[in-house]
Amino acid sequence: MDNFNFYSPTEFVFGKGREDECGEYVRKYGGSRVLIHYGGGSAVRSGLLGRVEQSLAKNGIYYCELGGVQPNPRDTLVYQGIDLCRKEQVDLILAVGGGSVIDSAKAIAAGTLYDGDFWDFYSGKHIEKALPIGVVLTIAAAGSEGSGDSVITKEDGLLKRGTGSDALRSKFSILDPELTQTLPPYQTACGATDIMAHVFERYFTNTREVEITDRLCEAVLITMVKETPRVIADPNNYEARANIMWAGMVAHNGIVGVGRSQDWNSHGLEHELSALYDCAHGAGLAVIMPAWMEFVYKHDVMRFCEMAVRVFGCQMNFEDPETTALEGIHRFRSFLHSIGMPINFAELGARPEDIPVMVEKLGLGDGKTWGFVRLSAEDVAEIYRIAVDATL
Amino acid sequence: MDNFNFYSPTEFVFGKGREDECGEYVRKYGGSRVLIHYGGGSAVRSGLLGRVEQSLAKNGIYYCELGGVQPNPRDTLVYQGIDLCRKEQVDLILAVGGGSVIDSAKAIAAGTLYDGDFWDFYSGKHIEKALPIGVVLTIAAAGSEGSGDSVITKEDGLLKRGTGSDALRSKFSILDPELTQTLPPYQTACGATDIMAHVFERYFTNTREVEITDRLCEAVLITMVKETPRVIADPNNYEARANIMWAGMVAHNGIVGVGRSQDWNSHGLEHELSALYDCAHGAGLAVIMPAWMEFVYKHDVMRFCEMAVRVFGCQMNFEDPETTALEGIHRFRSFLHSIGMPINFAELGARPEDIPVMVEKLGLGDGKTWGFVRLSAEDVAEIYRIAVDATL
Repeated sequence: MDNFNFYSPTEFVFGKGREDECGEYVRKYGGSRVLIHYGGGSAVRSGLLGRVEQSLAKNGIYYCELGGVQPNPRDTLVYQGIDLCRKEQVDLILAVGGGSVIDSAKAIAAGTLYDGDFWDFYSGKHIEKALPIGVVLTIAAAGSEGSGDSVITKEDGLLKRGTGSDALRSKFSILDPELTQTLPPYQTACGATDIMAHVFERYFTNTREVEITDRLCEAVLITMVKETPRVIADPNNYEARANIMWAGMVAHNGIVGVGRSQDWNSHGLEHELSALYDCAHGAGLAVIMPAWMEFVYKHDVMRFCEMAVRVFGCQMNFEDPETTALEGIHRFRSFLHSIGMPINFAELGARPEDIPVMVEKLGLGDGKTWGFVRLSAEDVAEIYRIAVDATL
Repeated sequence: MDNFNFYSPTEFVFGKGREDECGEYVRKYGGSRVLIHYGGGSAVRSGLLGRVEQSLAKNGIYYCELGGVQPNPRDTLVYQGIDLCRKEQVDLILAVGGGSVIDSAKAIAAGTLYDGDFWDFYSGKHIEKALPIGVVLTIAAAGSEGSGDSVITKEDGLLKRGTGSDALRSKFSILDPELTQTLPPYQTACGATDIMAHVFERYFTNTREVEITDRLCEAVLITMVKETPRVIADPNNYEARANIMWAGMVAHNGIVGVGRSQDWNSHGLEHELSALYDCAHGAGLAVIMPAWMEFVYKHDVMRFCEMAVRVFGCQMNFEDPETTALEGIHRFRSFLHSIGMPINFAELGARPEDIPVMVEKLGLGDGKTWGFVRLSAEDVAEIYRIAVDATL
C-alpha cells in the first residue's frame, strides 16, 4: 500500500426534507451573508429554492442569488459571482444543484479571496483558501459534494480545466434523495454511469494487495448494479435513490482510491467527446469505458476477472480466464445499455471521422498518458475506434 | 434508509514513517504547547516516543508528557492529565498509543476546558468543546483514532462508562502499519476481533434496503478474514498490517453504520466479562459474538445467510437456509479459533457460576436491551450459557 493522506471533513446531512435545515447549517458554519448559487429554472419551479430561502430567512441570514450555471460551468459566470460576493460581502456560498453548480461555487469561493485572476487556479496554481461552501445536492453523479475538485470551462476556446484543494471541500452537504426523484431516467442513468466510472478509475491500479480499497470499490459498484435498474424502472423508489445518492458521495470523496495508483484515462478520453458534441459526461463515459477496458484488459487479466466475478456475478472460467475477463466487460456494457445509455459513437451522436481531431486535442505528441496502462496517441485512437462499432 | 448525519473530519496520515511528520501536523492544527499522552514503556523502548519528541522539537513545539495509561483507562489518570494541561497551558493533546491512550486523551481534552468534574461527561452530559487532539496510533483495534467516542473506567467501583461527541474527533491521526509489527499475535488477533465486532454490531440491523452500507460492512469483514491470518502467520507482513490498520479505522468512524439501526448488545455483554476477569476486550468478544449469533439468528435467517455467503464464502443451501446461517456462524467461530482467540468460557478463564452476577450487573430488571433483537435478563443468561460450552 502506498502512503497516503485521507481527509474528508464535510458534514453530510442525509435524508428526507433535510434541505429545510440548511439555514441552521449555514449558521453552524459561520455564514451570515450567503450567495445562493444555482442552475436553471428547475430549482425555482420545484419550489426548492423557495424552501432554501425560507430556511435562511428563518435563521436571520441575509442572502443574494446567482443562477444560470450551465452544464460544463463557464468562467464568465464565475467572474460575475466573484464580483457579487465582493460587493455583497458574502461569507458563505450555498450551492443548490449538481456537480456543475458546486464546481462553479468552488471557483467563486476561491476567486473571491484571491487578488489575481481566478483562472490561475485552473492553470496550476494551488488554492490556499476559499470562502466556506455549503451544498444542497439535486443529482447523484459528480461527487463534487464530497470532493475538493472543481472543473471549469473557459468560454474563450472552450478550454476545460480542473483544480483540486482541501480548501474547496464543502463544510456541509445536504443530500435529500427525494430531490432526485424528479430527474428524467436519462439523466439518472448518466449520473449512475459517472458514479461507476469514478470507482473504476480507481479500481484499475498497478498497486498490489490493497484489499480494503478493492473491496470498498466493489461495495459501491455492486450497489450501483443493483440499485440503478430499480430507479430506472421506478423513479420514485426512495430507497434505491438513497443508496445511489450515498454511493455517489462514497465513490468520489477519496475513500475508494487511497493507497495506490489510479487511472483516469477514460475521463480524459471522454472530455474530448463532451467538448466536441456537448454530450452528457456520463453518456460519453458509457461509450468510452468498456472500449477502454477491451483495449487494456490483457495488461491484467485477473483484475478484470475479479471485476467480472465480484461485481457482475460471472462464473470464473479457471481454464480460460480471458473469457471471464471479456464476459465481465460485456456485462458492464450490457448493463449500461439496459439503463438507457449509448454504447457506441452512433448512439452518442459522435462521428468516426472526428477521431483524429480528438486525438490531436489530447496533445500527447510522442508521449503517453499516465495510469493503469499508459496510452500513446495511437492507443487512444484505437480505443475511440473500438467505441465506434461497439455492440452487445 | 433512515436520515443520518455523517461527519469524520479527521485528517488521516497513513503509511511508513509518517510519525516523523507529527510535528508538522501539530503545527498545522494550531498546537504550540503539547501534552504527549502514552501508555506503558513499549513506546519508550521502541524509540517511538523519542521520534515523536524529535519531530515536535524540530518544529519548535513545547511539550510535556504523561504516561501510564492502562488498558481500560482510569479516571484517576484523567484528573492528573487535566491538572497538567491547565498548569502547562497545553493547547493540543497528542495521544501516542492505542484505543485506551486515545480515549484517555479525549477525556483530558474535554475536561481541561470544563469547569466541573469531567466525569459529568461520562454520566450523560454532552461535550460541547475540547482541546484539539492528535493521534499516533500503535495498534489496529478500537477505532478511536477515527471516532468521537471515549470509554473511561472509574477507579472507585470499576464503573466503565462511555461518551461521544464530534468535539472529540481527532484533528489528525497518524497510522503507520510498521508500528504494529512488534505486537504479539494474541494482541493482534484481539484487535482484529474488535474490528470485526465493530462491523457486525452495525451489520445486524432491522432497517431494510441499505445496500450501500451492507456492502461497505462486508468490504471490511472480507478484508479482515483474508488479512488477519496473514499477519498471524507473519507479523512483519506490511501489506496485511496496512490493510488491517485502515480497515480498523473504516470499521468505526461511522461510514459502515449510517442510515439504519444498530445492535451493540455483544459489546454490552462483553463489558461484563472484561470487568470481571480483566480479559482483553477482543478476547471477550470472540467468546460472546458467535454465541449471540446462535441465540438471535432465527430473527433474520436470511441476514445470517448473507453473512455466510458473502463474508465466509459458504454455498447457499436454498432448500434449507438455516443450515447456511448456522454454517456462517460456525465459520466465524472457527476463524476466531484459527487466529488464536478463545471461543468459550474455559478458554477465556471465565466461570459459569458468575453468569448470574454478570446478568445482575447489566441491570436489566424486567426490561430489555435495545438492538437487532431486544434481550431480557433471561436471554442474556442464555447467551452466556451458550458461550460456556461452545466448541467447534
